[in-house]
Amino acid sequence: MSEAEAAGGEAASTEPMSPEEFRRWGYALVDWIARYRTEVEQYPVRSRVLPGEIRAALPPHPPEAPEPFDRILSDVDRVIMPGITHWQSPNFFAYFPCNNSEPSILGELLSAGLGVQGMLWSTSPACTELETHMLDWLVEMLDLPRTFLSTGEGGGVIQDTASSAALCALLAARERVTSGEGNRLGTHGNLVAYTSDQAHSSIEKAVRAAGTGSDQLRLVSTDAAFAMDPAALSRVIETDRAAGRIPFFVSATVGTTSSNAMDPLPEIGEVCRRNGVWLHVDAAMSGPAALCPEFRWIHRGLEFADSYCFNPHKWMAVNFDCDCFYVQRRADLISALSILPEYLRNAASETGAVIDYRDWQIPLGRRFRALKLWFVIRTYGVEGLRAMIRRHVSLAQELAARIEAHPLLELAADTPLNLVCFRHSHGDSATQAILDGINAEGRAFLTHTRLQDRLVIRVSVGQTHTERRHVDALWEGICRWATGPTANA
Amino acid sequence: MSEAEAAGGEAASTEPMSPEEFRRWGYALVDWIARYRTEVEQYPVRSRVLPGEIRAALPPHPPEAPEPFDRILSDVDRVIMPGITHWQSPNFFAYFPCNNSEPSILGELLSAGLGVQGMLWSTSPACTELETHMLDWLVEMLDLPRTFLSTGEGGGVIQDTASSAALCALLAARERVTSGEGNRLGTHGNLVAYTSDQAHSSIEKAVRAAGTGSDQLRLVSTDAAFAMDPAALSRVIETDRAAGRIPFFVSATVGTTSSNAMDPLPEIGEVCRRNGVWLHVDAAMSGPAALCPEFRWIHRGLEFADSYCFNPHKWMAVNFDCDCFYVQRRADLISALSILPEYLRNAASETGAVIDYRDWQIPLGRRFRALKLWFVIRTYGVEGLRAMIRRHVSLAQELAARIEAHPLLELAADTPLNLVCFRHSHGDSATQAILDGINAEGRAFLTHTRLQDRLVIRVSVGQTHTERRHVDALWEGICRWATGPTANA
Repeated sequence: MSEAEAAGGEAASTEPMSPEEFRRWGYALVDWIARYRTEVEQYPVRSRVLPGEIRAALPPHPPEAPEPFDRILSDVDRVIMPGITHWQSPNFFAYFPCNNSEPSILGELLSAGLGVQGMLWSTSPACTELETHMLDWLVEMLDLPRTFLSTGEGGGVIQDTASSAALCALLAARERVTSGEGNRLGTHGNLVAYTSDQAHSSIEKAVRAAGTGSDQLRLVSTDAAFAMDPAALSRVIETDRAAGRIPFFVSATVGTTSSNAMDPLPEIGEVCRRNGVWLHVDAAMSGPAALCPEFRWIHRGLEFADSYCFNPHKWMAVNFDCDCFYVQRRADLISALSILPEYLRNAASETGAVIDYRDWQIPLGRRFRALKLWFVIRTYGVEGLRAMIRRHVSLAQELAARIEAHPLLELAADTPLNLVCFRHSHGDSATQAILDGINAEGRAFLTHTRLQDRLVIRVSVGQTHTERRHVDALWEGICRWATGPTANA
Repeated sequence: MSEAEAAGGEAASTEPMSPEEFRRWGYALVDWIARYRTEVEQYPVRSRVLPGEIRAALPPHPPEAPEPFDRILSDVDRVIMPGITHWQSPNFFAYFPCNNSEPSILGELLSAGLGVQGMLWSTSPACTELETHMLDWLVEMLDLPRTFLSTGEGGGVIQDTASSAALCALLAARERVTSGEGNRLGTHGNLVAYTSDQAHSSIEKAVRAAGTGSDQLRLVSTDAAFAMDPAALSRVIETDRAAGRIPFFVSATVGTTSSNAMDPLPEIGEVCRRNGVWLHVDAAMSGPAALCPEFRWIHRGLEFADSYCFNPHKWMAVNFDCDCFYVQRRADLISALSILPEYLRNAASETGAVIDYRDWQIPLGRRFRALKLWFVIRTYGVEGLRAMIRRHVSLAQELAARIEAHPLLELAADTPLNLVCFRHSHGDSATQAILDGINAEGRAFLTHTRLQDRLVIRVSVGQTHTERRHVDALWEGICRWATGPTANA
């Protein structure tokens, strides 16, 4: 260390990238991304590397001296890209959409460039106020119950994921049912939570993490359409109540991960209201459909929900992470999560006139994610987002119709929106052959589930740039593999 | 909706930003950020807006039609910037550092551009393997216990924040002490957790969230240097044990938020080992100091830690979020957090040869944050990061010496690294006058704490571009306000 460095001088090595270099490499990376997004549809969707291959291509020890940025960028191509499964490819039909968009990438860039913390209103008022404003806009855009607006007793917040939203909802529900004692006593083996046997694993994860205990989670049975049976819910709640337990939390799903089933909110809501149970509604994957009036039926009964979430980072062109989480009474949530140490006290918070989002989530720190929503909503306009949703739904419906008409294929579930579930009529091994065949070719990527103990292929149509030709190519592959591998000789 | 749209055609409104436009606006935003980072030191550090001002400048309703991007960018300047508190200003001495850097911003940009999900190894192998590799590099860079390396039974993972890391550590500890029953039974009013009365609020938040209950959190007393008293810890553990309770979790802090106190890990570690209690070490703010051999004393005794975290997003030039969380035995963590639904099953996971990071955290989804670490470590080189740390520590030490020599000021705590805590010798109102005076002028931003029931100003020196001249200007302000507001007439 030189004396100049020790004394706080401006040694070159502590400023390794000048503003001019940042411009140069920033432009280069913007070009790289623009090219990537144009070319990505030609790449095999799923990475083909073997475990350990990427690590083996990396130096075992960190570099002592600075390295030039062009070497890093070329390593992105050489080392990283072979290990990428291309979630932004229009040929990605696996899992669930996780679609991003050009304005969203720019929103993330600006958020990183500003580098502010939004834990308190006072630590960057624009970070909090733009977020509150965007969450209110989204209430209007999706025609959600107005009780979720921040202008009343409710409000919305960006969480990283629906998993974290579910945990926060559970904690708010516990706070309400224990009149604030849940945080203090920590003994609640008597509290019982409910979701369907088709719900996302995040609900069980939340129940475990919060110490409710998975023994106190009831997986309510579902009907032929894989939707929660409200009569069954009512019965199991009654049984628990009769045994002296305290039902406190129901999580219903608008669009299950496996099959896009829609739990009947009006009936579930009635059961919850009758029993004084908190209703959380998880619409992580399907919520954005409500941008379009013709799909708003998915939220029928949402006025019963104490909390609700959906993910713009799944199907609204906003890159991960951006889960929108709403509560009807923010006081429950804040009471569950607020702790105020001296070093965070400030005048604005003490007036009560501002929102401090650290009290709406588990982490303290938070970045300026509302910029992504703002950039996307304005660049697309609500009509542009609707057009994307309609295109995806329309392509999925068409695919479902083709499957239904195919002699060897059958739909394994309804197709309410953009997820098509099907199987080969000859059974699991024939279904597996389609899945393996398509994925091995690499021109598309599909994943599976099991419904009624049978293997099912899921086709999730939701990438930003997925067009008819991509679904047509997938259909060609499905037909080919459905008639057996010999057809490929 | 036109027929072309309904049929999945390429309607202009669904592709609102072409690759050419993305290039153009990407360049513009890179320029904007380069200019911002150059000019930010001239801005008032703290936003001066009043509650509601930002929202009032935003349209009440979302735009139906797309808007041109230049209008959005100009609104960033007009609407957003007045509401920004400039965490990246070299004159930001408040709270804790949250420093970013040019290569880190580019890493975040690339992560957004790729838009991959790293929940499973198979969903993008490079995302997982680069992360594991970077976390192993950091073990070497900070000279952490080799038991944290992924090559043995331990391993590291990126969490969003130290708050989430603490919650995961607590859940792993519960899993271990209950032999896996904690998740299932959910009744653990008998389990007791410990931290010091100077620990971060995130520990209490984790204890509440996990359902341990804040009544079962003991705030162990601290010594004159605000460090946890190991004898007091031992006594309170014995008392709990004698009462039939089960001590299971201790969180020690390397660098408390209030005063940068260092809990004595060797002595605490001995107590934990003797009692079979999980030791978590939170070095969120100060851990990066260990890049420099001369500061590695802060981690003396870390070999006792079952888990450990530090935040490159605080003091290692990596933008938020990037908390590095390590465990000695990853099996405890995975056992606590793993749930495997059918739709996530895959061949690679079932071999057991790969890491699926979804089992190391609360959320399911995760973005490619390791790129930021990779870009920063390579662009700075380890020597460049060390030089930054040394510069900050050196500037803080110099400021502490000046305060000590000033007739009206006194240090309120030791200054082991880069946080200087001081007060006016005339008492709280004189201290408050300095704080208010400096913050009202806006040329710097300071925050406070209370130590031994007296108001204390904290000067946290850790922004990437903070140099001697910024601390000199702050010192000039401190001296001026220390001698009373009349000196400003």
